[in-house]
Amino acid sequence: MTTTATATKQFMTSDQLLEDWQGHRNLTRRVIEAFPEKDLFEFSIGGMRPFAKMATELIGIAGPALKGIIDNNMEAYNEEGFKPGTKEDILKKWDEETEVINHYFNMISEERFQETFNLFGEYEFPVYQNVLYFIDNEIHHRAQGYVYLRALGIEPPFFWERF
Amino acid sequence: MTTTATATKQFMTSDQLLEDWQGHRNLTRRVIEAFPEKDLFEFSIGGMRPFAKMATELIGIAGPALKGIIDNNMEAYNEEGFKPGTKEDILKKWDEETEVINHYFNMISEERFQETFNLFGEYEFPVYQNVLYFIDNEIHHRAQGYVYLRALGIEPPFFWERF
Repeated sequence: MTTTATATKQFMTSDQLLEDWQGHRNLTRRVIEAFPEKDLFEFSIGGMRPFAKMATELIGIAGPALKGIIDNNMEAYNEEGFKPGTKEDILKKWDEETEVINHYFNMISEERFQETFNLFGEYEFPVYQNVLYFIDNEIHHRAQGYVYLRALGIEPPFFWERF
Repeated sequence: MTTTATATKQFMTSDQLLEDWQGHRNLTRRVIEAFPEKDLFEFSIGGMRPFAKMATELIGIAGPALKGIIDNNMEAYNEEGFKPGTKEDILKKWDEETEVINHYFNMISEERFQETFNLFGEYEFPVYQNVLYFIDNEIHHRAQGYVYLRALGIEPPFFWERF
């Protein structure tokens, strides 16, 4: 094996990434569902945001960011457009965004994943890194939701159950 | 864009995956460092493990799993080999594993990432999915460490700072 070979190895295809991501999104959906209505909007540890706020952030990033990448639109990140009042509001929007994500993600070309994009006019990275960040950020906040559930005495869904 | 084109798009190279992973590992190292010695081994929320136990799990997975993939060894997962008594023990082992990960990860061929492997004799998935799982699991537990730190009144490192 040469260094050159190493530098050009494919790790995964874009289809595989999307399937992995939607698997994560299914799990996050189950974590939202596991919260009692009141705790979803109010429970907090150490001054952190309630899980409804974290879920609203995730909804505000993935779909809008992918649309921005396709439209070459560098508008600032904006969470103000969606103000859920109930768990049902969040789950409904979550499912709508599933289709938005599939639609725009599939429009990104292999070359584009390697090109730099100034996401939300603020995060200037290659597109593949931006996408990884969306997923990492989701895993990060969801895991904080796991701690909230445990603190509430509720068993969270299995981490490895995705579909 | 045709369906065929979609199915064969590369999302990222293996070098890019490794760089992303080691960036995550740098951040996890900073989270370990941020814990007071006693809290690292004792602090817990909702009956969950102290963060030292989670870090020990992460150390028990990444390097040994990659070595298993290269050696075609399906031995069971075993956390018993490493029993840290101090934060320094964990950080030292963490840094040693950085080299182990780089060494074995770079030996995995593009074809191998797509082949199924029965990791630890228990998790039978394509190798790329196994690798994604190591990283996801690290982000997941690290985020739980973030909540512990917040509950302890300690500001965790920035999520986006990796190098």
